[in-house]
Amino acid sequence: MSQSNESAQGPSRRRLLKAGLAGTLAGGLVTGRALAAGDPAITDIQDWNRYSGPGVDAQPYGTPSPYEKTVIRRNVPWLTADPVSSVNFTPLHALDGIITPNGLCFERHHAGVAEIDPAAHRLMINGLVETPLVFTMADLARFPRTNRIYFLECAANSGMEWRGAQLNGCQFTHGMVHCVMYTGVPLRAVLAEAGLKPGATWLLAEGADAAAMTRSIPLEKALDDCMIAFAMNGEALRPEQGYPIRLVVPGWEGNMWVKWLRRLELGDQPWQQREETSKYTDLLASGKARRFTWAMEVKSVITSPSPQAPVRHGRGRLVISGLAWTGNGRIAQVDVTIDGGRNWTAARIDGPSLPHALHRFYLEHDWDGSALFLQSRAIDEKGYVQPTKDALRAARGSNSIYHNNGIQTWYVGTDGVVENVEIS
Amino acid sequence: MSQSNESAQGPSRRRLLKAGLAGTLAGGLVTGRALAAGDPAITDIQDWNRYSGPGVDAQPYGTPSPYEKTVIRRNVPWLTADPVSSVNFTPLHALDGIITPNGLCFERHHAGVAEIDPAAHRLMINGLVETPLVFTMADLARFPRTNRIYFLECAANSGMEWRGAQLNGCQFTHGMVHCVMYTGVPLRAVLAEAGLKPGATWLLAEGADAAAMTRSIPLEKALDDCMIAFAMNGEALRPEQGYPIRLVVPGWEGNMWVKWLRRLELGDQPWQQREETSKYTDLLASGKARRFTWAMEVKSVITSPSPQAPVRHGRGRLVISGLAWTGNGRIAQVDVTIDGGRNWTAARIDGPSLPHALHRFYLEHDWDGSALFLQSRAIDEKGYVQPTKDALRAARGSNSIYHNNGIQTWYVGTDGVVENVEIS
Repeated sequence: MSQSNESAQGPSRRRLLKAGLAGTLAGGLVTGRALAAGDPAITDIQDWNRYSGPGVDAQPYGTPSPYEKTVIRRNVPWLTADPVSSVNFTPLHALDGIITPNGLCFERHHAGVAEIDPAAHRLMINGLVETPLVFTMADLARFPRTNRIYFLECAANSGMEWRGAQLNGCQFTHGMVHCVMYTGVPLRAVLAEAGLKPGATWLLAEGADAAAMTRSIPLEKALDDCMIAFAMNGEALRPEQGYPIRLVVPGWEGNMWVKWLRRLELGDQPWQQREETSKYTDLLASGKARRFTWAMEVKSVITSPSPQAPVRHGRGRLVISGLAWTGNGRIAQVDVTIDGGRNWTAARIDGPSLPHALHRFYLEHDWDGSALFLQSRAIDEKGYVQPTKDALRAARGSNSIYHNNGIQTWYVGTDGVVENVEIS
Repeated sequence: MSQSNESAQGPSRRRLLKAGLAGTLAGGLVTGRALAAGDPAITDIQDWNRYSGPGVDAQPYGTPSPYEKTVIRRNVPWLTADPVSSVNFTPLHALDGIITPNGLCFERHHAGVAEIDPAAHRLMINGLVETPLVFTMADLARFPRTNRIYFLECAANSGMEWRGAQLNGCQFTHGMVHCVMYTGVPLRAVLAEAGLKPGATWLLAEGADAAAMTRSIPLEKALDDCMIAFAMNGEALRPEQGYPIRLVVPGWEGNMWVKWLRRLELGDQPWQQREETSKYTDLLASGKARRFTWAMEVKSVITSPSPQAPVRHGRGRLVISGLAWTGNGRIAQVDVTIDGGRNWTAARIDGPSLPHALHRFYLEHDWDGSALFLQSRAIDEKGYVQPTKDALRAARGSNSIYHNNGIQTWYVGTDGVVENVEIS
């Protein structure tokens, strides 16, 4: 847990502060502008000091500032034939920390958003169980609850990049990921209520949407850390995230986190559903396909600067920031390069370091104004190192659109404009 | 860090599960209904399976389900003369986990919400500094950033309860608290840029709202863990929470977390502003007032069941859930009583346990259907124990409306209806 509070106090701290200051001034101010007497910044009273804005009844459920109206989920219209079966992307370039606000969590639907009345919704358990059961949402709330912060990444995140640099912005290249605190009940507790019959080794999870989204999950994972979640970031799940309940499958690809969950069937083999055969399998150069590639492997991306978040302040202190995550647990280290991989510097991971959650990293860099080839490379606690895209292609070809966890390169021009590029 | 994943696997886990099940069935199902062949729950296809709802372009910034429309911040109209200088309350009874969604964070304004264009906003540092400075918002983003999950509690939270049980719902008795992940820059780094003059021992923080909200903060706290925050739960601060920047003063009363922050002045004594003299001081029975009572002391409340979240399911498994927090760091323990304090049971704290953050607790109780006097009592890592309201009144009288961290009692009737009561 990296949430530490320094506690140096009093005179010794004061001396440290001044010593630090002397060093800073010797090299000039990092940021800010010195004021002189009579400076307008001192004497002006800004307009918003002259009046009061809206009061507490203005917005019973609050919304962002109008000045943030461009911070939204965005679709790529040409990517799919219809927005009902499509994807939009989390605006990673405009966010910080590790929590994604609920209104900005990317969406992927196979047949639109099911609009469900929770009072009418049921969860059924059938198949190889002692007692088939049906639960109301109120029933589920009576199991012991648990709270976990987890990332959810679509298997197709960065999928367009298999064939080279395509989309100009980390929202589009990496925005099929979000991270929230889930509240729910352990799947194993609910399954225990029905009782597993001998031979039960697989679980089918089925959604109540028009696609009846279905995936086979090995029972070992189901009994380990899966949850039936009913809340995200404290409040009820959003409709587009599976309201009133979704499956949570920590570290594994997003389509297995079945939304609008209505049925769990126990069986002795996988069901070979559409979304685990014709889709969500990885077609190799040989023509064979890898299937059941569940875990999302170690990955990172620099979110700022990035094509949608160019450098506007010229040379000097540049805060390089990004996200890293792994389906294998925690992130151990993130390295950043400014020269396309010749030299790497360890970045600072700041904030909670939790298993199967996003990690936020920063590198403060003194930019000399020359062009940069920015990359980040994550290493997880199991020792896996994020590969280059070329290494991935050498191993798997470029037929697939899934499981691209390759290193991303941003070219930062001398004017601060950023582009999605590939270097070899 | 309590985010642990159990990892027992395979046959031994399977046996455990069945053993657990036998125990469960012996006592009857905890929840759920057994299905028979031909049960409508098996054969019916629910309506939402027949059509697809909206697609990914429907809501670029998402909102909750229409079925959650009652989960909103609420005002108490008679509490203040005007909503522009008033408060609304977080709907704690409807939330779970420890994160408050941004749209539901309670508001307290002294002169409404300042509507600020971040491009025009400035932060000034003056007073006992080597170099008075002014910063743009882009300047501030160039300091090293940090991410922390903190609660913010208004000093007047539970203030009405000094004079006995008043408001029927934890939203109203305890809803002037929220907890989000803040991203910002350490205050000490920004102050170091200006350089502190000898003799600087106090900091004045001033907001750009029409109230020019101002508080004096001892420099030791300012240099310890205060932040200038620009993001909450990943996105820009909401306008009602100080957009574009607010001060974060971990563990201390909310009015010191100055919103719409525009000026920091260094001095050698407190400024004795209105909000630290005529307001936010604690009038004792003697007629003297305690002032500069900054830290929010150890506190907890049961959020469910509570007056707005009655027990609807009759006897049997009842999940008792609530929140605990302390300005002294972490919560060490929460005890729950169902008999008004004669017997206490340790509750289970679940989810991250972080300093100066909300902690979520649960107690699974087998309710026999008789009336309950429910209370929770938190103990923090410094050993402070949440007091009874009577003990608080004995020490401080009942003139104040601030710093009431007394134990809350909910009466649960045999019909499951819950009321705010006091017992002696």
